[in-house]
Parts: sequence; structure tokens; C-alpha cells
Amino acid sequence: MRIYDIISKKRHGLSLSKEEIEFAVNGYVRGDIPDYQMSALLMAICINSMNEEETAILTKTMMNSGDVLDLSRFSNLTVDKHSTGGVGDKTTLIVAPIAASLGCKVAKMSGRGLGFTGGTVDKLEAISGYNTSLSVEDFFSQVEKIGIAVIGQTGNLAPADKKIYALRDVTATIDSVPLIASSIMSKKLAAGSSSIVLDVKCGSGAFMKDRAGAISLAEAMVKIGRSFGRRVRAVITNMDAPLGVCVGNSLEICEAVDVLKGRGDKKLTSLCLTLAANMVSLSFDIPYEEAYKKAVLSLESGKAFEKMLEWVSYQGGDVRPIKDTSLLPLAKHKVEVKSDFDGYVCRIDAEKIGLASMSLGAGRAKKDDKIDFGAGIVLKVGVSDKVSRGDVLAVAYASDKSLFDGAEKLIKEAFTFSDKKPEEKELILDTIS
Amino acid sequence: MRIYDIISKKRHGLSLSKEEIEFAVNGYVRGDIPDYQMSALLMAICINSMNEEETAILTKTMMNSGDVLDLSRFSNLTVDKHSTGGVGDKTTLIVAPIAASLGCKVAKMSGRGLGFTGGTVDKLEAISGYNTSLSVEDFFSQVEKIGIAVIGQTGNLAPADKKIYALRDVTATIDSVPLIASSIMSKKLAAGSSSIVLDVKCGSGAFMKDRAGAISLAEAMVKIGRSFGRRVRAVITNMDAPLGVCVGNSLEICEAVDVLKGRGDKKLTSLCLTLAANMVSLSFDIPYEEAYKKAVLSLESGKAFEKMLEWVSYQGGDVRPIKDTSLLPLAKHKVEVKSDFDGYVCRIDAEKIGLASMSLGAGRAKKDDKIDFGAGIVLKVGVSDKVSRGDVLAVAYASDKSLFDGAEKLIKEAFTFSDKKPEEKELILDTIS
Repeated sequence: MRIYDIISKKRHGLSLSKEEIEFAVNGYVRGDIPDYQMSALLMAICINSMNEEETAILTKTMMNSGDVLDLSRFSNLTVDKHSTGGVGDKTTLIVAPIAASLGCKVAKMSGRGLGFTGGTVDKLEAISGYNTSLSVEDFFSQVEKIGIAVIGQTGNLAPADKKIYALRDVTATIDSVPLIASSIMSKKLAAGSSSIVLDVKCGSGAFMKDRAGAISLAEAMVKIGRSFGRRVRAVITNMDAPLGVCVGNSLEICEAVDVLKGRGDKKLTSLCLTLAANMVSLSFDIPYEEAYKKAVLSLESGKAFEKMLEWVSYQGGDVRPIKDTSLLPLAKHKVEVKSDFDGYVCRIDAEKIGLASMSLGAGRAKKDDKIDFGAGIVLKVGVSDKVSRGDVLAVAYASDKSLFDGAEKLIKEAFTFSDKKPEEKELILDTIS
Repeated sequence: MRIYDIISKKRHGLSLSKEEIEFAVNGYVRGDIPDYQMSALLMAICINSMNEEETAILTKTMMNSGDVLDLSRFSNLTVDKHSTGGVGDKTTLIVAPIAASLGCKVAKMSGRGLGFTGGTVDKLEAISGYNTSLSVEDFFSQVEKIGIAVIGQTGNLAPADKKIYALRDVTATIDSVPLIASSIMSKKLAAGSSSIVLDVKCGSGAFMKDRAGAISLAEAMVKIGRSFGRRVRAVITNMDAPLGVCVGNSLEICEAVDVLKGRGDKKLTSLCLTLAANMVSLSFDIPYEEAYKKAVLSLESGKAFEKMLEWVSYQGGDVRPIKDTSLLPLAKHKVEVKSDFDGYVCRIDAEKIGLASMSLGAGRAKKDDKIDFGAGIVLKVGVSDKVSRGDVLAVAYASDKSLFDGAEKLIKEAFTFSDKKPEEKELILDTIS
């Protein structure tokens, strides 16, 4: 078998066999196939696509390139959630304790962030003492006892995906349904949960700019998961604005606590209840509506919040700043960003807010950058709110005043105004199962 | 400008601007753009193609990456010929003296061969003393005096094409009309002739397997040439069998002499007259039929052969083996390859004959391999001939008897037989101008 022939086949729009896909992926991981051949193959896949069978084989090959977790001891109760990424997305911090409070087993490995803010694991490290690197034994034992543990990615999950993704990132071969679907699913399948809920973002700040593209991606991922015998459901959500009102690390922990205490942003709360209800519905194989009622009850009764305290405490974290979020580390300088216009807010560009947050110190531009947990942005107005010139649009936090100039400019640019009140877009666009 | 955005544009089927094409090509030649990004762009071009304007810009950018010869001292009489490559193609050795004998200025730089046999320059080196590396001054002065000089590629013609071609060769991005057309034309334009005749091969042994593809390629090259103010004509020729009866270096010199003496293979002679007539027709701007008659006369009168003797002699070569081809170096061992079947020859696979020739020592597998000028193959039967079991199909020549086993097998495999006499295919399929 020669990689040349495999590239040529896909270049001419033909389907690749199991042996050919394994030859390409495993050869690339071993270093036998150079970057320039793999990038040619990836471009051919981007343009000529892959069918369902090829996508499933690619997923399996990448999954099997590293460790595959065995969570079978928890029978069918393990459930995972994945979001295709978004500015201000702190849903894991909220849905995990809701689902665990209802009996799900949330054995979650999360990534660190590169970009706008930290990842979930970085955010959790804003809580003093929280241990993100449990041994596998302790991880399993915690899930067994309290139904939830969230740690940093351990071992070596889907290293083939990691290497291929890095190449796609510099060769304009990211936005391909089979490549995105297999990349996400190879990691989710390796992480071992029986049920998987996918939050597929759609809009200007997401991989998928339009609804049709998001539906294709969601369908592809659901099909892959099914072909591996997992229960999968995908929720397509609007990502034309940042999620919730806080962007940062401490700030997002604070907002997550607000939601769990029933006083959070309405849209964010609604999304979290939807995701959690889908997790519960899949895990226990009960109707969505029944699961939704349970999720609402968990939130209203305080059970979900209690579960968060138990989880943080079990994992070595200080629960005082969870009980009283004013104790969370917050950067010492803040600035109010004021509107230069009168009118209705018709859009808040999530990407610009993300860049502003990164420039304030809340995210990493390079892998080794240090995150400033206390930095970030709190939005003071939302889409369709009426503002007047001089009204505060957002408050920015940073440890160094010199960072405000650039961030303030980006935040102002993120807002678009209009004379007429814009129609509100729904947050949940579709559910694919 | 970022290469990422250029790749992304072509991946989505958009046209690239002059600035973008120059940025990509020049950046790649300088080493600023790595192989893996260039191969992704090339694959996107292969699948999504390039329009006429982009192809002309790509050609110009590659042409300008190195030396560009100025042949304006010869007014409009300079004429070049290019063949898209074929097994047994010795047409340059024949058409160049015919055209020169009729007043054309043939200032030709030819490549060395990698593959089945040597290139034109390698073949000429089978003539003792022939100097393939004249200085530019001597090259020009020879063309001035006798109308013909053929040397190895001097200086640095289209180095961007060379680097890009090497990458295409290992990433399955060869067979693309705009990429093949710009590659060939960048070198031909840099070589400076006013008129260019292109021999576009079509068939199993060629880049272009079918007639429609060959026509597209020919049209693309003619359009590029025109946009640079050159006179260009393309002849599409059938390449389902080797050209002529000899494959090798000395053997092909010998066959070229046979044609110039009027006793050569009929099909090969006919092709050479067609190509030479097109060269003369373009150079002097006269009708093709008139030029064809002149070419026939040059051959019949012995003027073309006289021109070959003058040319070889001027360039330091020994003319005795041209006058008496039995003096050409021939490998000391030979073997007759006999038919295992009865029937009509319906096909002779050019690629297999080429591989056999290379395995006998007539070609290079690697850049530094030494060529055995005396090695090669003489075909004893042609397509549509009737043969009986035991008849000689071909004679193979080699300096080492151990090479015969593999070559004999390949030669036998190259022949396909049938019970019925096959229809003869025309050699000249189309002319594009």
C-alpha cells in the first residue's frame, strides 16, 4: 500500500477502505508519512468529503491510537457532554452537578484552553486547592461515591487526532464535517461514557456559521456514536453572542454558581437545563420532558448546588468561594466600557469579546502562557437591550492597567446597534437524535 | 497576506489574485511557506481548478522565478517543440534538423531523463564527442550560423516549477490541467522561442488518458502561450504504444537517422513531418499544407540529414556513427523475446516497455544513476501484426546478462493479443491552434 495511491483515490472522489484509512492515520502518527502528504490527503477529504462508513473508520482509528477508558463498572449511567466551543461557555460547571445530583455518573476529562479563556480545567483551578490531576483510581472511586469528577485529560486520548488537528489548523482544513465529527467523537469515545450529549454551536462565533451546516455536523456525530453503540443526542444552539454575561475564569465560576443558585442569566440557565435534561434522559432512558422536570427540580431544590459543593470539596477545593463568590480571586483593576451610541444592541460579536478577554490575561495565546484567573469581562447589557450614550456596556478586569486600552477598543467594536429593537433569536435551534 | 487565507480561498473554489499567486509561489521558493501548506494548496487547485487568468499568472510567476532567455536577435524565426513525454520519443532528433534545414532557428535546451530512457540530451551523448554544455555565446553563435543547437538546460530555468513539481510528484497532484499547462509553459516561455509546437500525448502511457483531457490540456497551453504573444500550436497524438520501434539511447539515435534517411518507421516519420511542418508553418507564417510539402522535400532530398551531420559536427560530435549507425555503441549481450501466443498484436503497453528499457540500463531510476547508452529494446512487431508462438516480438540489449530475466518478463507482459485483427488507431488525433 502506498500513501500516494490513497491520496490519489480521495483526490478523485473515491471512498477509502478501512485498510487505507488505518495506513494513512497510523503511518502519519508513526512519522512514516510526512506532513506534506497528510495535508494533501486532508485537503482532498475537505473538498470531496467522506461517507458515513469512512468517517466511522477514521474515528475508530484515531480513538484507538491512544488510551481508551473502560467505564463499564458504572453500567450505562456514565454520561459525557461536549460543546463545540464558545466564548463564555461554562455549561460543564453547571450541567455536571445537575446530572450527578439526579444519579448520572459524570466521569469527565476536560481540556485546558488555548484561546479566549481557559478551558473547564483552567476555570476549576481558579478555586483554591481544586485538584485537576487525580489518579485513575481516585477518579473512578470519586465517581463511584458522589457521581461526579472532573479532571484534566490524563494519559493519551486520541493522539492521532491531536497531531492531525495541529496540521489542519495551519492548512485551512478545519471546516469539514467528517473531519470535525471524527475529531470530536474519537476523543469522546475514548473517554468511555455510555451516553454523550453534544452542544453544537451555530453562528458567527462557531465552526458552523449556518444552521444547515450545524445540523450536518450534529447528524454526523450522532451517527458515529450510534455505530459504536453509544446513546448520543445533539442540541444545536445559537452562538451569535457570548454565552451568559461573564467571560473569564473566576468570573465564570461565579456565574456558574449564580445559575446553580437559581439567580443566573435566563438564557444560560435554559441552555443548561436543556443539556442536563438530555443527559438524564439518555442515561436513564426516560422521556426528555420527564428528565427536564427533574433537572428544574434539582436546581430549584438546591440539590444541584449541594452537589457542586460536594464535588469541589471531594476534589480538594476550597468551598468558601463557592458559598460566597465574592471570595473568588478577581483582578485588582477594573474599567467600565461605555457606549458611544444610542440604540438597541443588535449583536455582540463573541469572537471580539473572546479576543478582548484573552488580551486582558484570561486566556492563552501560546501553550505556555500563564492564565490570570481574575481577569475577564462582565457584560452589562445583552442583545435587544436599549442603551444610551454613556451607559455601561461591560466591565473589564485586569491585573495590569495597560491592558485596558486594547481590550476596551475590542469590546466597543463587538457591539452593533440599531434603531429598531431586533427580534430575539432562540437559543436552542434543533435537537438531533 | 497569509498563506492560510490563500489556501482557504482555493479550498472554497474562489479565484486567486495575482498578488496571492505570487505570494504563494515566491514564498514557497524562498522557503517561507512549508511543503505541507503548499501541498494543501496544490490539492485544492487540482480539485477546484484555476481559470485562464490564474493559470497565466501562475505560469508567469514560475517563469520569472529564474532566468528568461532573450532570443530576440533571431527575430521571429526561433521555434521550440515540446512533447508531454513518451516511451521511444526521439522526435526532437528528427524535427529539429528538418525545421533548421528549412530556415527555422532551433535554439533548444533539453532535459536529462529520469525514468524509462535518457532525455534528448542523454541520447545525444551517445554520440562520441557531442558537447551538450556550450556557453551561451557559443550556443547563440551556432544557432546564428547553422540554425540549430541542442544543449542541456543551462542556468536556472523556472526553478519554482522544479520545486513545485517535485512536491506534486509525491502528493498525487500531477494530473491537473492548469498545473501541467503552467509547468510546461513556464519552462518553454523562459526558453525564449517565438513559436512553440506542442506534442500532447494521449493514451495509456501518457498524463492524459483520454482525448477530451488531452484537448483541454492543449487548449490551456495554447491560450497561455498566446497571452504571452507567442505563436503556439498543439498536436494531439496517440500514445497507446511506444513511438517507433527503438527504445534506448544509441538505438534511438539510430532510428532517428533511419527516419532522416527516409527509411524509418512510417508512423514515426509521419508524426515528425507533422510536427516539423507545424514548426515551419508558425515560424514563417505560411499555411500548414505548404510547410508540410517543404518538410517532405527536405527529408526526401537529404537536406534534413545533411543538417543533422552539420549540427552534430558543429557541436563536436563524431559524424561517423551518424553516417554508419553500426558504429554506435551497442550493449554486447542481446536476447530475442519470443511470443508465447498465436494471434494479432492488439496493444503494446508503452509503460511496461519503458520499465523494461530502464531495467536493462537505458534509463535512470535515481538522479545519479549512470545510463548505459548501448542498452535498450528494438520492437520486431507492431500493433495489428499477426504473430505465431515462437516469433520474435522484440530484441533486448544489455551489458549484463543477469538483467534479461526481469526485462523479458516485462516485455512479454507488454504485449496483448487477440484473435481478430484490431482496427488501427490514427497517430494524429487533433490539432489545436
